[in-house]
Amino acid sequence: MGERITLDYSNMMSAVLGDRGISDEILEQYQQSFRAAHRKVEAARQQGAIGFFKLPAAREIVREIRGFAEGIGQAFDTVVVLGIGGSALGTLALQQALLKPHWNELSDEQRDYFPRLYVLDNVDPTTIGPLLDRLDMRRTLFNVVSKSGTTAETMAQFLIVRERLRRAFGDDPDAYRRHLLFTTDPDKGVLRELAQAESIPTLPIPPDVGGRFSVLSSVGLLPAAIVGIDIEALLNGAAAMDERCRSDDVANNPAGVFACLQHAADSQLHAPIHVMLSYSDRLYLMADWFRQLWAESLGKQNRGPTPVKALGATDQHSQVQLYIEGPFDKTITILALTDGSSDVPIPKEYPDVDALSYLGGHTLGELLNAERRATAQALAQRGRMNMTIEVPTLDAHSMGELFMMLQIATVYAGELYEVNPFDQPGVELGKELTYGYFGRPGYEPPETGRRDSRWVVR
Amino acid sequence: MGERITLDYSNMMSAVLGDRGISDEILEQYQQSFRAAHRKVEAARQQGAIGFFKLPAAREIVREIRGFAEGIGQAFDTVVVLGIGGSALGTLALQQALLKPHWNELSDEQRDYFPRLYVLDNVDPTTIGPLLDRLDMRRTLFNVVSKSGTTAETMAQFLIVRERLRRAFGDDPDAYRRHLLFTTDPDKGVLRELAQAESIPTLPIPPDVGGRFSVLSSVGLLPAAIVGIDIEALLNGAAAMDERCRSDDVANNPAGVFACLQHAADSQLHAPIHVMLSYSDRLYLMADWFRQLWAESLGKQNRGPTPVKALGATDQHSQVQLYIEGPFDKTITILALTDGSSDVPIPKEYPDVDALSYLGGHTLGELLNAERRATAQALAQRGRMNMTIEVPTLDAHSMGELFMMLQIATVYAGELYEVNPFDQPGVELGKELTYGYFGRPGYEPPETGRRDSRWVVR
Repeated sequence: MGERITLDYSNMMSAVLGDRGISDEILEQYQQSFRAAHRKVEAARQQGAIGFFKLPAAREIVREIRGFAEGIGQAFDTVVVLGIGGSALGTLALQQALLKPHWNELSDEQRDYFPRLYVLDNVDPTTIGPLLDRLDMRRTLFNVVSKSGTTAETMAQFLIVRERLRRAFGDDPDAYRRHLLFTTDPDKGVLRELAQAESIPTLPIPPDVGGRFSVLSSVGLLPAAIVGIDIEALLNGAAAMDERCRSDDVANNPAGVFACLQHAADSQLHAPIHVMLSYSDRLYLMADWFRQLWAESLGKQNRGPTPVKALGATDQHSQVQLYIEGPFDKTITILALTDGSSDVPIPKEYPDVDALSYLGGHTLGELLNAERRATAQALAQRGRMNMTIEVPTLDAHSMGELFMMLQIATVYAGELYEVNPFDQPGVELGKELTYGYFGRPGYEPPETGRRDSRWVVR
Repeated sequence: MGERITLDYSNMMSAVLGDRGISDEILEQYQQSFRAAHRKVEAARQQGAIGFFKLPAAREIVREIRGFAEGIGQAFDTVVVLGIGGSALGTLALQQALLKPHWNELSDEQRDYFPRLYVLDNVDPTTIGPLLDRLDMRRTLFNVVSKSGTTAETMAQFLIVRERLRRAFGDDPDAYRRHLLFTTDPDKGVLRELAQAESIPTLPIPPDVGGRFSVLSSVGLLPAAIVGIDIEALLNGAAAMDERCRSDDVANNPAGVFACLQHAADSQLHAPIHVMLSYSDRLYLMADWFRQLWAESLGKQNRGPTPVKALGATDQHSQVQLYIEGPFDKTITILALTDGSSDVPIPKEYPDVDALSYLGGHTLGELLNAERRATAQALAQRGRMNMTIEVPTLDAHSMGELFMMLQIATVYAGELYEVNPFDQPGVELGKELTYGYFGRPGYEPPETGRRDSRWVVR
């Protein structure tokens, strides 16, 4: 395990950026505030108060999951996860990073006979209807993921799927149960009750693990295992990163450095927009997963940074103009994949055409990495803060490291921003209004508010 | 054509939001500055100085494109667009909006025998290599899109594809040309020269149409036509919107209202983050297309808003916490699709379970729209500016309206921000540094800048 992810933050510092960077003095101050934050987090960990810290060591559930995934799980052609937010984003990130691209288009043989994997993370009928219409329900497993069992989107999907399964198995009214797997609270909630009443198999979500910190629980592990991802390596990577983050010396704690730099950029240098720019197609949804973690954990009490996901080299032709010459209000965290194991050579066609010949003899990977380094350098030359997280190998271990680093950084950032990173009070109002529109008993139909036709352009 | 897209901006106004909204006085000021901006834009239009205004009327090229698409274009199973930025984003938005979901997974019959469509908008070898390996080169058309013919990413892809095509047709050294189509400048540039030398078919990009304003040129029209999208309806929609935007009364000009409100929110109310929140899976990549347009056109001279793309209901479980309770620094533009033509009923399973029974009897579309309205209202109740663009029908006409509205709004916004919306000087430095890393003649290898191992966490 010699290789592990590294963080280079030279281009965040005033030695490179002048007064647009973070000075040694600021970093020194954070050394102090970080120690305090670290102490509180470690105390909470000792008390067992932060659920996700316990996940890398929870190996009993791994055996259960592998038993299911390698046994009955392989009887299915297709696995569909019904889940939204934290029940979907980790699985999507793992799928994109670790499965072959365009996985669901591949033949059984190309997929090494692992099932197709869909994640229904929305309730758009124009997407869900056509997909369900073409699935063979007799070869499909539906993994319903919701801790409470009350998530409206997931439950609506579940009702539709249950009815279709029962219809498909009209001759055998019990068979539909074998096509369902509930991932939910171990003791309570609607899904737990239904599972008990109908003998539907389940996996537990630890009660002290919230949705956006749940990727390393059975929420993320079951779908991963069923498509052949090495979930033990994933947890080993998370454990290795967790070990690195036991240090209270900020300079040696990757999550600590990340949290302190982002907080300093926001509160000291007025850069509240935190872009995560993946220079790999395979890590773009990792940036999307981070986007939930950072926004929902820290965006409260009229403060909190705004995370943005971006993709290199693609967004050099879309966003980099703004990043380089727009307002000084951003940090750019570059995700770099330096794994060159599956590169594509650029052939020397047109050796006599100047505008093309410089490309031949190189590889696509070299081009992507040259563009990444050029972007980092161009940003720095224009006084724009950026740092690079380098991922040496695209594998489950690295993904575990990344997930854990960013989760721990979020908890530290909660301390620095002085907010509770584990709640999300702001989403309640929208839920109540939705219930009201749907006439759920106990909820008022919403007043539609003041409208003025002056303010509608038709 | 009774139905057309509308813009409701009630929730931007101080009558709803108090001092967190835009007052009638501010709107009145913008009435004046908008008239001036409109006058300048119309004058430039009269002089033919803004290329994209001419595209909806350019029907000759439509005949040419349809001739190709309906003729030789249908000989292919698969079309691959090699393009990045403005050469890719419009096509991706059209594909997602107007083709059946998961298009490339569908059988020939399910696709009504139209080809599969891939857009290679990056140079990641881990994506491109496996895709090219499994394509049947003898049934694939490669549409190379670059005005200059010097875009490094696109040209690298082209060199790889050319070599593979030549290899596939080893017995017939000329056959590879029939699998290429160049969309490029009509007179000059590298691709134009190669096309002439090798008799490769081409389509023109008008010289005065820049990449991010090119979706309604052959850049977007050819791939759209080849997969069966009604490109005349697309242009008709654009023309209809253009007509609406001839009005210099801001209240009747959808693009004018949009530009003025966004500029006012940024410059008067300090809300520089402009989220486009699509409440439809099918319009999410429209938000991505807009993200390039808004960022690259306005992000310069140390100013410019930061566009962000988001997806509802999904991001209610990721970003809405931040939007509702985070800092007051955003506007949210909701894209609403009110087309209910392909809805999915939620069956009345579990009529006795309170937490589920309120869903049964409704539809997924109703749920999605209730959540959209609830989010708009919750944002407004918390004093967060938002507006809704309502799209009555998901079809090519509406897409044309949307593209044109947002393009015209961008030109108006350029006037209000006092920047040139058609240039992108900030991306040059990164290009030069990339060339340097690649040893292109005439470019220096970059100095790697000041590094300090203190700033690397290993």
